[in-house]
Amino acid sequence: MSSKTTGNTSEEAPPPPLCSILHELRTAENSGGYFLPRLHSLKESDPNLKLLEVGSGWGHMTASLSKIIGPSGKVVGLDIDPSTLVHARRHAKNAGVESHTDFIQGDAYAIPFADETFDITHAHQVLAHMERPWEVIREMVRVTKPGGFVAIREGDLESEVVWPKEPGLTKFHELIVKGMNMRGKGGGGADTGRQLLPWALRAGVDRTKATLSYGTWWFDGAEDKDKWAKAMVGQVRGGTVGQVAVQLGLASQEDLDEMASAWEDWAKRDDSSLAMMHGEIVIEK
Amino acid sequence: MSSKTTGNTSEEAPPPPLCSILHELRTAENSGGYFLPRLHSLKESDPNLKLLEVGSGWGHMTASLSKIIGPSGKVVGLDIDPSTLVHARRHAKNAGVESHTDFIQGDAYAIPFADETFDITHAHQVLAHMERPWEVIREMVRVTKPGGFVAIREGDLESEVVWPKEPGLTKFHELIVKGMNMRGKGGGGADTGRQLLPWALRAGVDRTKATLSYGTWWFDGAEDKDKWAKAMVGQVRGGTVGQVAVQLGLASQEDLDEMASAWEDWAKRDDSSLAMMHGEIVIEK
Repeated sequence: MSSKTTGNTSEEAPPPPLCSILHELRTAENSGGYFLPRLHSLKESDPNLKLLEVGSGWGHMTASLSKIIGPSGKVVGLDIDPSTLVHARRHAKNAGVESHTDFIQGDAYAIPFADETFDITHAHQVLAHMERPWEVIREMVRVTKPGGFVAIREGDLESEVVWPKEPGLTKFHELIVKGMNMRGKGGGGADTGRQLLPWALRAGVDRTKATLSYGTWWFDGAEDKDKWAKAMVGQVRGGTVGQVAVQLGLASQEDLDEMASAWEDWAKRDDSSLAMMHGEIVIEK
Repeated sequence: MSSKTTGNTSEEAPPPPLCSILHELRTAENSGGYFLPRLHSLKESDPNLKLLEVGSGWGHMTASLSKIIGPSGKVVGLDIDPSTLVHARRHAKNAGVESHTDFIQGDAYAIPFADETFDITHAHQVLAHMERPWEVIREMVRVTKPGGFVAIREGDLESEVVWPKEPGLTKFHELIVKGMNMRGKGGGGADTGRQLLPWALRAGVDRTKATLSYGTWWFDGAEDKDKWAKAMVGQVRGGTVGQVAVQLGLASQEDLDEMASAWEDWAKRDDSSLAMMHGEIVIEK
Protein backbone atom coordinates (compact mmCIF):
# COMPACT_ATOMS: atom_id res chain seq x y z
CA MET A 1 0.00 0.00 0.00
CA SER A 2 1.52 3.32 -0.98
CA SER A 3 1.64 6.22 1.44
CA LYS A 4 -0.48 8.11 -1.09
CA THR A 5 -3.45 5.90 -0.38
CA THR A 6 -3.00 5.48 3.35
CA GLY A 7 -1.92 8.96 4.47
CA ASN A 8 -2.22 8.02 8.11
CA THR A 9 1.03 6.34 9.08
CA SER A 10 2.29 5.96 12.64
CA GLU A 11 4.42 9.11 12.26
CA GLU A 12 1.44 11.27 11.33
CA ALA A 13 -1.43 12.48 13.45
CA PRO A 14 -4.81 11.26 12.12
CA PRO A 15 -6.58 13.86 9.99
CA PRO A 16 -9.07 15.87 12.05
CA PRO A 17 -12.77 15.08 11.66
CA LEU A 18 -14.54 16.74 8.74
CA CYS A 19 -16.59 19.04 10.94
CA SER A 20 -13.59 20.42 12.77
CA ILE A 21 -12.10 21.51 9.43
CA LEU A 22 -15.29 23.41 8.65
CA HIS A 23 -15.47 24.75 12.19
CA GLU A 24 -11.97 26.23 12.08
CA LEU A 25 -12.98 28.40 9.17
CA ARG A 26 -16.01 29.89 10.93
CA THR A 27 -16.05 33.51 11.98
CA ALA A 28 -18.81 35.82 13.12
CA GLU A 29 -18.37 37.70 9.85
CA ASN A 30 -18.58 34.77 7.44
CA SER A 31 -21.23 32.80 9.34
CA GLY A 32 -23.13 35.27 11.52
CA GLY A 33 -24.22 37.96 9.08
CA TYR A 34 -27.89 37.08 9.58
CA PHE A 35 -27.87 38.10 13.26
CA LEU A 36 -24.98 40.56 13.64
CA PRO A 37 -27.08 43.70 12.98
CA ARG A 38 -29.43 42.55 15.76
CA LEU A 39 -26.48 41.86 18.07
CA HIS A 40 -25.01 45.32 17.43
CA SER A 41 -28.39 46.90 18.04
CA LEU A 42 -28.70 45.10 21.42
CA LYS A 43 -25.15 46.10 22.31
CA GLU A 44 -25.92 49.77 21.74
CA SER A 45 -28.52 49.71 24.49
CA ASP A 46 -26.56 47.36 26.76
CA PRO A 47 -22.75 47.01 26.49
CA ASN A 48 -22.74 44.18 29.06
CA LEU A 49 -24.24 41.49 26.86
CA LYS A 50 -24.08 37.83 27.82
CA LEU A 51 -23.79 35.33 24.97
CA LEU A 52 -23.97 31.54 25.11
CA GLU A 53 -22.39 29.48 22.34
CA VAL A 54 -23.95 26.01 22.29
CA GLY A 55 -21.57 23.40 20.87
CA SER A 56 -18.51 25.61 20.96
CA GLY A 57 -16.06 22.92 19.76
CA TRP A 58 -12.56 24.26 19.38
CA GLY A 59 -13.86 27.76 20.01
CA HIS A 60 -13.15 29.54 16.74
CA MET A 61 -16.65 30.91 16.27
CA THR A 62 -16.94 31.63 20.00
CA ALA A 63 -13.75 33.69 20.06
CA SER A 64 -14.85 35.57 16.99
CA LEU A 65 -18.14 36.46 18.70
CA SER A 66 -16.25 37.34 21.91
CA LYS A 67 -14.34 40.00 20.01
CA ILE A 68 -17.62 41.64 19.06
CA ILE A 69 -19.21 41.25 22.51
CA GLY A 70 -16.08 42.85 24.01
CA PRO A 71 -14.61 42.80 27.53
CA SER A 72 -17.60 44.63 29.00
CA GLY A 73 -19.72 41.58 28.15
CA LYS A 74 -19.44 37.87 28.85
CA VAL A 75 -19.30 34.85 26.55
CA VAL A 76 -19.72 31.22 27.55
CA GLY A 77 -18.93 28.28 25.26
CA LEU A 78 -20.68 25.00 26.08
CA ASP A 79 -19.62 21.63 24.68
CA ILE A 80 -20.47 18.05 25.59
CA ASP A 81 -16.95 16.89 24.67
CA PRO A 82 -14.49 17.80 27.46
CA SER A 83 -11.53 17.29 25.10
CA THR A 84 -12.58 20.40 23.16
CA LEU A 85 -12.28 22.71 26.17
CA VAL A 86 -8.46 22.73 26.24
CA HIS A 87 -8.32 23.71 22.58
CA ALA A 88 -11.07 26.28 22.94
CA ARG A 89 -9.41 27.96 25.96
CA ARG A 90 -6.06 28.04 24.16
CA HIS A 91 -7.70 29.58 21.11
CA ALA A 92 -9.50 32.21 23.21
CA LYS A 93 -6.17 33.12 24.82
CA ASN A 94 -4.46 33.43 21.44
CA ALA A 95 -7.36 35.54 20.20
CA GLY A 96 -7.01 37.85 23.22
CA VAL A 97 -10.56 37.29 24.49
CA GLU A 98 -9.87 35.05 27.50
CA SER A 99 -10.75 37.76 30.04
CA HIS A 100 -14.45 37.57 29.16
CA THR A 101 -14.73 34.08 27.61
CA ASP A 102 -15.34 30.85 29.54
CA PHE A 103 -15.70 27.32 28.23
CA ILE A 104 -17.61 24.71 30.19
CA GLN A 105 -18.52 21.09 29.65
CA GLY A 106 -22.25 20.46 29.46
CA ASP A 107 -25.23 18.99 27.69
CA ALA A 108 -27.19 20.98 25.11
CA TYR A 109 -30.31 18.97 26.08
CA ALA A 110 -29.99 20.26 29.65
CA ILE A 111 -28.12 23.55 29.46
CA PRO A 112 -26.61 24.14 32.92
CA PHE A 113 -27.93 27.69 33.33
CA ALA A 114 -31.04 29.21 34.83
CA ASP A 115 -33.93 30.49 32.69
CA GLU A 116 -33.31 33.87 31.07
CA THR A 117 -29.56 34.04 31.66
CA PHE A 118 -28.29 35.14 28.22
CA ASP A 119 -29.07 37.98 25.85
CA ILE A 120 -27.99 35.90 22.86
CA THR A 121 -27.93 32.12 22.58
CA HIS A 122 -26.18 30.89 19.48
CA ALA A 123 -25.42 27.59 17.74
CA HIS A 124 -23.68 26.99 14.42
CA GLN A 125 -23.45 23.61 12.64
CA VAL A 126 -24.42 21.90 15.88
CA LEU A 127 -28.02 20.68 15.50
CA ALA A 128 -26.90 18.44 12.63
CA HIS A 129 -25.23 16.36 15.34
CA MET A 130 -28.28 16.08 17.60
CA GLU A 131 -30.95 13.41 17.51
CA ARG A 132 -33.66 15.70 18.94
CA PRO A 133 -32.69 19.17 17.72
CA TRP A 134 -36.05 20.65 18.70
CA GLU A 135 -35.25 19.86 22.35
CA VAL A 136 -32.00 21.79 22.06
CA ILE A 137 -33.88 24.74 20.58
CA ARG A 138 -36.33 24.62 23.50
CA GLU A 139 -33.40 24.76 25.93
CA MET A 140 -31.77 27.59 24.02
CA VAL A 141 -35.00 29.60 24.16
CA ARG A 142 -35.36 28.85 27.89
CA VAL A 143 -31.97 30.30 28.86
CA THR A 144 -32.50 33.43 26.74
CA LYS A 145 -33.69 36.67 28.34
CA PRO A 146 -36.88 38.39 27.17
CA GLY A 147 -35.77 41.00 24.65
CA GLY A 148 -32.86 38.78 23.64
CA PHE A 149 -32.71 36.25 20.83
CA VAL A 150 -31.64 32.77 19.76
CA ALA A 151 -29.65 32.45 16.52
CA ILE A 152 -29.02 29.11 14.80
CA ARG A 153 -27.38 28.27 11.47
CA GLU A 154 -27.05 24.82 9.92
CA GLY A 155 -25.68 23.63 6.59
CA ASP A 156 -27.83 21.90 4.00
CA LEU A 157 -25.36 19.60 2.30
CA GLU A 158 -27.79 18.50 -0.40
CA SER A 159 -27.67 22.05 -1.77
CA GLU A 160 -23.91 21.90 -2.29
CA VAL A 161 -22.75 22.89 -5.78
CA VAL A 162 -19.27 22.28 -7.14
CA TRP A 163 -17.63 23.37 -10.36
CA PRO A 164 -16.29 21.67 -12.38
CA LYS A 165 -18.64 18.68 -12.28
CA GLU A 166 -15.86 16.11 -12.25
CA PRO A 167 -17.06 12.54 -11.56
CA GLY A 168 -14.71 12.28 -8.54
CA LEU A 169 -16.23 15.39 -6.95
CA THR A 170 -19.77 14.24 -7.67
CA LYS A 171 -18.96 10.85 -6.10
CA PHE A 172 -17.55 12.58 -3.03
CA HIS A 173 -20.64 14.74 -2.65
CA GLU A 174 -22.93 11.72 -2.97
CA LEU A 175 -20.82 9.78 -0.45
CA ILE A 176 -20.98 12.53 2.15
CA VAL A 177 -24.73 13.04 1.64
CA LYS A 178 -25.30 9.29 2.00
CA GLY A 179 -23.07 9.12 5.06
CA MET A 180 -24.86 11.99 6.78
CA ASN A 181 -28.27 10.53 5.99
CA MET A 182 -27.21 7.19 7.51
CA ARG A 183 -26.35 8.72 10.86
CA GLY A 184 -29.87 8.48 12.18
CA LYS A 185 -33.09 10.35 12.63
CA GLY A 186 -33.66 13.83 13.93
CA GLY A 187 -30.82 16.14 12.97
CA GLY A 188 -27.76 14.78 11.33
CA GLY A 189 -29.11 14.47 7.83
CA ALA A 190 -27.83 16.16 4.74
CA ASP A 191 -30.93 18.39 4.77
CA THR A 192 -30.52 19.95 8.20
CA GLY A 193 -30.51 23.56 7.02
CA ARG A 194 -34.07 23.55 5.73
CA GLN A 195 -35.48 22.09 8.96
CA LEU A 196 -34.73 24.93 11.36
CA LEU A 197 -38.21 26.39 11.08
CA PRO A 198 -40.12 23.09 11.59
CA TRP A 199 -37.86 22.26 14.52
CA ALA A 200 -38.40 25.68 16.09
CA LEU A 201 -42.18 25.30 15.79
CA ARG A 202 -41.93 21.81 17.30
CA ALA A 203 -39.97 23.39 20.18
CA GLY A 204 -43.00 25.58 20.86
CA VAL A 205 -41.74 28.77 19.22
CA ASP A 206 -44.46 31.11 17.95
CA ARG A 207 -44.17 31.49 14.15
CA THR A 208 -44.28 35.28 14.45
CA LYS A 209 -41.16 35.23 16.66
CA ALA A 210 -39.09 33.27 14.13
CA THR A 211 -37.28 34.86 11.19
CA LEU A 212 -35.94 32.39 8.64
CA SER A 213 -33.25 33.13 6.10
CA TYR A 214 -30.89 31.19 3.87
CA GLY A 215 -27.23 32.10 3.52
CA THR A 216 -24.28 30.69 1.61
CA TRP A 217 -20.79 29.50 2.28
CA TRP A 218 -18.39 29.28 -0.63
CA PHE A 219 -14.79 28.99 -1.71
CA ASP A 220 -13.26 30.30 -4.89
CA GLY A 221 -9.93 31.80 -3.76
CA ALA A 222 -6.71 29.83 -4.35
CA GLU A 223 -5.69 29.76 -0.67
CA ASP A 224 -9.08 28.61 0.65
CA LYS A 225 -9.40 26.01 -2.08
CA ASP A 226 -5.95 24.64 -1.39
CA LYS A 227 -6.72 24.32 2.33
CA TRP A 228 -10.10 22.74 1.63
CA ALA A 229 -8.81 20.31 -0.97
CA LYS A 230 -5.95 19.18 1.31
CA ALA A 231 -8.49 18.51 4.05
CA MET A 232 -10.74 16.53 1.70
CA VAL A 233 -7.78 14.54 0.36
CA GLY A 234 -6.79 13.77 3.96
CA GLN A 235 -10.36 12.66 4.64
CA VAL A 236 -10.49 10.15 1.79
CA ARG A 237 -6.84 9.04 2.08
CA GLY A 238 -6.73 7.55 5.57
CA GLY A 239 -9.20 9.93 7.26
CA THR A 240 -12.58 9.19 8.80
CA VAL A 241 -14.56 9.60 5.58
CA GLY A 242 -12.41 7.11 3.70
CA GLN A 243 -12.31 4.59 6.54
CA VAL A 244 -16.06 4.68 7.16
CA ALA A 245 -16.86 4.61 3.43
CA VAL A 246 -14.80 1.46 2.91
CA GLN A 247 -16.11 -0.20 6.11
CA LEU A 248 -19.71 0.39 5.08
CA GLY A 249 -19.08 -0.57 1.47
CA LEU A 250 -20.07 2.89 0.22
CA ALA A 251 -16.89 3.37 -1.79
CA SER A 252 -13.96 1.32 -3.06
CA GLN A 253 -10.34 2.31 -2.66
CA GLU A 254 -10.40 3.21 -6.36
CA ASP A 255 -13.36 5.52 -5.78
CA LEU A 256 -11.51 7.21 -2.93
CA ASP A 257 -8.40 7.67 -5.06
CA GLU A 258 -10.53 9.20 -7.81
CA MET A 259 -12.07 11.60 -5.28
CA ALA A 260 -8.69 12.61 -3.88
CA SER A 261 -7.25 13.28 -7.34
CA ALA A 262 -10.34 15.25 -8.30
CA TRP A 263 -9.96 17.49 -5.22
CA GLU A 264 -6.28 18.04 -6.03
CA ASP A 265 -7.15 19.07 -9.59
CA TRP A 266 -10.03 21.24 -8.35
CA ALA A 267 -7.72 23.24 -6.09
CA LYS A 268 -5.33 24.01 -8.96
CA ARG A 269 -7.98 25.39 -11.32
CA ASP A 270 -8.66 29.08 -11.75
CA ASP A 271 -12.37 28.58 -12.44
CA SER A 272 -13.33 26.12 -9.70
CA SER A 273 -15.63 26.88 -6.81
CA LEU A 274 -17.74 25.22 -4.15
CA ALA A 275 -20.84 26.61 -2.45
CA MET A 276 -23.41 25.38 0.03
CA MET A 277 -26.58 26.83 1.43
CA HIS A 278 -27.22 27.21 5.13
CA GLY A 279 -30.55 27.66 6.85
CA GLU A 280 -30.55 30.47 9.42
CA ILE A 281 -33.11 31.30 12.07
CA VAL A 282 -33.44 34.09 14.58
CA ILE A 283 -35.95 33.52 17.37
CA GLU A 284 -36.97 36.57 19.38
CA LYS A 285 -37.57 35.85 23.02
CA MET B 1 -61.51 16.61 -18.16
CA SER B 2 -62.15 18.81 -15.18
CA SER B 3 -61.15 22.44 -15.20
CA LYS B 4 -58.94 21.57 -12.25
CA THR B 5 -56.65 19.57 -14.47
CA THR B 6 -56.73 21.80 -17.52
CA GLY B 7 -56.68 25.26 -16.06
CA ASN B 8 -56.25 26.87 -19.44
CA THR B 9 -59.72 27.14 -21.00
CA SER B 10 -60.61 29.52 -23.79
CA GLU B 11 -61.91 32.07 -21.27
CA GLU B 12 -58.61 32.24 -19.40
CA ALA B 13 -55.30 33.74 -20.45
CA PRO B 14 -52.54 31.12 -20.54
CA PRO B 15 -50.35 31.14 -17.43
CA PRO B 16 -47.21 33.22 -17.97
CA PRO B 17 -43.93 31.37 -18.56
CA LEU B 18 -42.09 30.19 -15.47
CA CYS B 19 -39.27 32.69 -15.85
CA SER B 20 -41.57 35.67 -16.05
CA ILE B 21 -43.04 34.72 -12.67
CA LEU B 22 -39.57 34.72 -11.17
CA HIS B 23 -38.66 37.89 -13.00
CA GLU B 24 -41.62 39.85 -11.64
CA LEU B 25 -40.37 39.25 -8.12
CA ARG B 26 -36.90 40.62 -8.79
CA THR B 27 -35.76 43.87 -7.28
CA ALA B 28 -32.37 45.54 -6.94
CA GLU B 29 -32.62 44.88 -3.20
CA ASN B 30 -33.46 41.17 -3.29
CA SER B 31 -31.26 40.28 -6.27
CA GLY B 32 -28.54 42.93 -6.50
CA GLY B 33 -27.03 42.95 -3.03
CA TYR B 34 -23.70 41.67 -4.36
CA PHE B 35 -23.06 44.76 -6.48
CA LEU B 36 -25.13 47.56 -4.89
CA PRO B 37 -22.33 48.81 -2.58
CA ARG B 38 -20.10 49.14 -5.64
CA LEU B 39 -22.87 50.94 -7.54
CA HIS B 40 -23.41 53.40 -4.68
CA SER B 41 -19.68 54.01 -4.46
CA LEU B 42 -19.52 54.83 -8.21
CA LYS B 43 -22.56 57.08 -7.87
CA GLU B 44 -20.89 59.12 -5.15
CA SER B 45 -18.12 60.14 -7.53
CA ASP B 46 -20.41 60.45 -10.56
CA PRO B 47 -24.16 61.08 -10.20
CA ASN B 48 -24.66 60.70 -13.98
CA LEU B 49 -24.18 56.96 -14.21
CA LYS B 50 -25.22 55.00 -17.30
CA LEU B 51 -26.49 51.47 -16.72
CA LEU B 52 -27.34 48.80 -19.30
CA GLU B 53 -29.69 45.97 -18.37
CA VAL B 54 -29.14 43.03 -20.73
CA GLY B 55 -32.28 40.89 -21.08
CA SER B 56 -34.60 43.37 -19.43
CA GLY B 57 -37.79 41.34 -20.00
CA TRP B 58 -40.82 43.00 -18.50
CA GLY B 59 -38.57 45.55 -16.86
CA HIS B 60 -39.11 44.90 -13.16
CA MET B 61 -35.43 44.63 -12.27
CA THR B 62 -34.57 47.47 -14.67
CA ALA B 63 -37.08 49.84 -13.06
CA SER B 64 -35.83 48.91 -9.62
CA LEU B 65 -32.26 49.77 -10.67
CA SER B 66 -33.50 52.98 -12.35
CA LYS B 67 -34.80 54.16 -9.00
CA ILE B 68 -31.31 53.82 -7.55
CA ILE B 69 -29.54 55.35 -10.58
CA GLY B 70 -31.94 58.31 -10.36
CA PRO B 71 -32.99 60.94 -12.92
CA SER B 72 -29.47 62.39 -13.13
CA GLY B 73 -28.37 59.06 -14.66
CA LYS B 74 -29.54 56.95 -17.57
CA VAL B 75 -30.76 53.36 -17.78
CA VAL B 76 -31.22 51.29 -20.93
CA GLY B 77 -33.01 47.93 -21.01
CA LEU B 78 -32.15 45.64 -23.91
CA ASP B 79 -34.23 42.62 -24.93
CA ILE B 80 -34.28 40.42 -28.02
CA ASP B 81 -38.06 39.94 -27.73
CA PRO B 82 -39.88 43.06 -28.99
CA SER B 83 -43.10 42.00 -27.23
CA THR B 84 -41.47 42.68 -23.88
CA LEU B 85 -40.79 46.34 -24.63
CA VAL B 86 -44.43 47.46 -24.29
CA HIS B 87 -44.70 45.82 -20.88
CA ALA B 88 -41.34 47.16 -19.75
CA ARG B 89 -42.15 50.74 -20.80
CA ARG B 90 -45.51 50.56 -19.06
CA HIS B 91 -43.88 49.24 -15.91
CA ALA B 92 -41.21 51.99 -15.99
CA LYS B 93 -43.98 54.58 -16.27
CA ASN B 94 -45.89 53.09 -13.35
CA ALA B 95 -42.68 53.00 -11.32
CA GLY B 96 -42.05 56.68 -12.09
CA VAL B 97 -38.69 56.14 -13.78
CA GLU B 98 -39.63 56.68 -17.43
CA SER B 99 -37.78 60.02 -17.68
CA HIS B 100 -34.41 58.29 -17.50
CA THR B 101 -35.23 54.74 -18.63
CA ASP B 102 -35.31 53.49 -22.24
CA PHE B 103 -36.07 50.04 -23.56
CA ILE B 104 -34.73 48.91 -26.90
CA GLN B 105 -34.89 45.74 -28.92
CA GLY B 106 -31.51 44.16 -29.55
CA ASP B 107 -29.25 41.14 -29.47
CA ALA B 108 -27.10 40.37 -26.43
CA TYR B 109 -24.56 38.72 -28.76
CA ALA B 110 -24.13 42.03 -30.61
CA ILE B 111 -25.05 44.77 -28.16
CA PRO B 112 -25.97 47.83 -30.26
CA PHE B 113 -23.70 50.26 -28.41
CA ALA B 114 -20.16 51.47 -28.87
CA ASP B 115 -17.27 50.21 -26.70
CA GLU B 116 -17.11 51.76 -23.22
CA THR B 117 -20.61 53.28 -23.20
CA PHE B 118 -21.88 52.20 -19.77
CA ASP B 119 -20.62 52.48 -16.20
CA ILE B 120 -22.54 49.38 -15.19
CA THR B 121 -23.65 46.50 -17.41
CA HIS B 122 -25.98 44.10 -15.67
CA ALA B 123 -27.80 40.84 -16.40
CA HIS B 124 -29.96 38.74 -14.10
CA GLN B 125 -31.29 35.25 -14.92
CA VAL B 126 -30.48 35.85 -18.57
CA LEU B 127 -27.40 33.75 -19.44
CA ALA B 128 -29.38 30.62 -18.59
CA HIS B 129 -31.27 31.32 -21.80
CA MET B 130 -28.19 31.74 -24.01
CA GLU B 131 -26.36 29.06 -25.93
CA ARG B 132 -23.01 30.89 -25.80
CA PRO B 133 -23.13 32.83 -22.55
CA TRP B 134 -19.39 33.61 -22.66
CA GLU B 135 -19.99 35.61 -25.86
CA VAL B 136 -22.61 37.69 -24.08
CA ILE B 137 -20.16 38.32 -21.24
CA ARG B 138 -17.54 39.46 -23.77
CA GLU B 139 -20.07 41.90 -25.24
CA MET B 140 -21.04 43.16 -21.79
CA VAL B 141 -17.39 43.80 -20.93
CA ARG B 142 -16.86 45.55 -24.27
CA VAL B 143 -19.61 48.15 -23.73
CA THR B 144 -18.48 48.87 -20.15
CA LYS B 145 -16.28 51.89 -19.39
CA PRO B 146 -12.89 51.51 -17.71
CA GLY B 147 -13.51 52.03 -14.00
CA GLY B 148 -17.02 50.59 -14.38
CA PHE B 149 -18.15 47.02 -13.88
CA VAL B 150 -20.22 44.13 -15.22
CA ALA B 151 -22.56 42.35 -12.77
CA ILE B 152 -24.23 39.04 -13.55
CA ARG B 153 -26.38 36.75 -11.42
CA GLU B 154 -27.79 33.36 -12.42
CA GLY B 155 -29.77 30.73 -10.55
CA ASP B 156 -28.46 27.24 -9.92
CA LEU B 157 -31.62 25.18 -9.88
CA GLU B 158 -29.88 21.99 -8.79
CA SER B 159 -29.18 23.67 -5.45
CA GLU B 160 -32.87 24.25 -4.76
CA VAL B 161 -34.05 23.02 -1.35
CA VAL B 162 -37.68 22.65 -0.35
CA TRP B 163 -39.30 21.78 2.94
CA PRO B 164 -41.24 19.60 3.52
CA LYS B 165 -39.79 16.92 1.28
CA GLU B 166 -43.15 15.87 -0.14
CA PRO B 167 -42.90 13.46 -3.09
CA GLY B 168 -44.91 15.85 -5.29
CA LEU B 169 -42.46 18.68 -4.65
CA THR B 170 -39.44 16.44 -5.21
CA LYS B 171 -40.98 15.25 -8.49
CA PHE B 172 -41.56 18.85 -9.55
CA HIS B 173 -37.97 19.80 -8.75
CA GLU B 174 -36.64 16.81 -10.72
CA LEU B 175 -38.91 17.61 -13.65
CA ILE B 176 -37.74 21.22 -13.86
CA VAL B 177 -34.08 20.24 -13.52
CA LYS B 178 -34.50 17.63 -16.25
CA GLY B 179 -36.37 20.08 -18.47
CA MET B 180 -33.70 22.75 -18.10
CA ASN B 181 -30.90 20.29 -18.79
CA MET B 182 -32.68 19.16 -21.99
CA ARG B 183 -32.69 22.65 -23.45
CA GLY B 184 -29.24 22.33 -24.94
CA LYS B 185 -25.62 23.10 -24.41
CA GLY B 186 -24.00 26.31 -23.23
CA GLY B 187 -26.18 28.11 -20.71
CA GLY B 188 -29.66 26.91 -20.05
CA GLY B 189 -28.84 24.06 -17.73
CA ALA B 190 -29.94 23.62 -14.16
CA ASP B 191 -26.38 24.39 -13.07
CA THR B 192 -25.98 27.83 -14.63
CA GLY B 193 -25.13 29.65 -11.39
CA ARG B 194 -21.86 27.85 -10.78
CA GLN B 195 -20.59 28.51 -14.31
CA LEU B 196 -20.26 32.28 -14.24
CA LEU B 197 -16.56 32.21 -13.42
CA PRO B 198 -15.58 29.66 -16.12
CA TRP B 199 -17.68 31.58 -18.65
CA ALA B 200 -16.06 34.88 -17.68
CA LEU B 201 -12.57 33.38 -18.08
CA ARG B 202 -13.61 31.93 -21.44
CA ALA B 203 -14.74 35.46 -22.41
CA GLY B 204 -11.18 36.62 -21.81
CA VAL B 205 -11.69 38.20 -18.40
CA ASP B 206 -8.59 38.32 -16.20
CA ARG B 207 -9.17 36.21 -13.06
CA THR B 208 -8.00 39.08 -10.84
CA LYS B 209 -10.77 41.31 -12.23
CA ALA B 210 -13.55 38.86 -11.37
CA THR B 211 -15.15 38.58 -7.94
CA LEU B 212 -17.36 35.53 -7.46
CA SER B 213 -20.00 35.15 -4.80
CA TYR B 214 -23.02 32.97 -4.14
CA GLY B 215 -26.31 34.37 -2.90
CA THR B 216 -29.72 32.94 -2.07
CA TRP B 217 -33.32 33.49 -2.99
CA TRP B 218 -35.95 32.09 -0.67
CA PHE B 219 -39.61 32.15 0.32
CA ASP B 220 -41.01 31.44 3.74
CA GLY B 221 -43.69 34.13 4.19
CA ALA B 222 -47.38 33.24 3.69
CA GLU B 223 -47.99 35.84 0.96
CA ASP B 224 -44.92 34.95 -1.12
CA LYS B 225 -45.59 31.25 -0.75
CA ASP B 226 -49.20 31.66 -1.82
CA LYS B 227 -48.16 33.62 -4.91
CA TRP B 228 -45.43 31.13 -5.75
CA ALA B 229 -47.62 28.06 -5.23
CA LYS B 230 -50.41 29.51 -7.39
CA ALA B 231 -47.89 30.12 -10.15
CA MET B 232 -46.52 26.58 -9.87
CA VAL B 233 -50.02 25.09 -9.86
CA GLY B 234 -50.81 27.14 -12.98
CA GLN B 235 -47.65 25.80 -14.58
CA VAL B 236 -48.47 22.15 -14.06
CA ARG B 237 -52.24 22.53 -14.61
CA GLY B 238 -52.36 23.75 -18.20
CA GLY B 239 -49.19 25.86 -18.21
CA THR B 240 -46.01 25.40 -20.21
CA VAL B 241 -44.33 23.08 -17.70
CA GLY B 242 -47.27 20.68 -17.65
CA GLN B 243 -47.74 20.74 -21.43
CA VAL B 244 -44.08 20.18 -22.22
CA ALA B 245 -43.71 17.52 -19.52
CA VAL B 246 -46.58 15.50 -20.96
CA GLN B 247 -45.45 16.01 -24.58
CA LEU B 248 -41.94 14.79 -23.77
CA GLY B 249 -43.17 11.95 -21.60
CA LEU B 250 -41.43 13.34 -18.52
CA ALA B 251 -44.57 13.25 -16.38
CA SER B 252 -48.05 11.78 -16.46
CA GLN B 253 -51.22 13.73 -15.75
CA GLU B 254 -51.29 11.97 -12.36
CA ASP B 255 -47.76 13.18 -11.61
CA LEU B 256 -48.78 16.73 -12.51
CA ASP B 257 -51.86 16.52 -10.26
CA GLU B 258 -49.68 15.26 -7.41
CA MET B 259 -47.30 18.17 -7.94
CA ALA B 260 -50.12 20.72 -7.99
CA SER B 261 -51.65 19.36 -4.79
CA ALA B 262 -48.26 19.31 -3.12
CA TRP B 263 -47.70 23.00 -3.96
CA GLU B 264 -51.15 23.86 -2.61
CA ASP B 265 -50.40 22.07 0.66
CA TRP B 266 -46.93 23.62 0.82
CA ALA B 267 -48.36 27.13 0.65
CA LYS B 268 -50.72 26.48 3.58
CA ARG B 269 -48.06 25.24 5.97
CA ASP B 270 -46.43 27.38 8.62
CA ASP B 271 -43.10 25.57 8.43
CA SER B 272 -42.58 25.33 4.68
CA SER B 273 -39.88 27.11 2.74
CA LEU B 274 -38.04 27.07 -0.57
CA ALA B 275 -34.54 28.33 -1.28
CA MET B 276 -32.17 28.36 -4.22
CA MET B 277 -28.59 29.46 -4.67
CA HIS B 278 -27.48 31.93 -7.29
CA GLY B 279 -24.00 32.46 -8.64
CA GLU B 280 -22.97 36.12 -8.75
CA ILE B 281 -20.02 37.73 -10.49
CA VAL B 282 -18.68 41.26 -10.63
CA ILE B 283 -16.14 41.97 -13.35
CA GLU B 284 -14.13 45.17 -13.01
CA LYS B 285 -13.35 46.84 -16.31
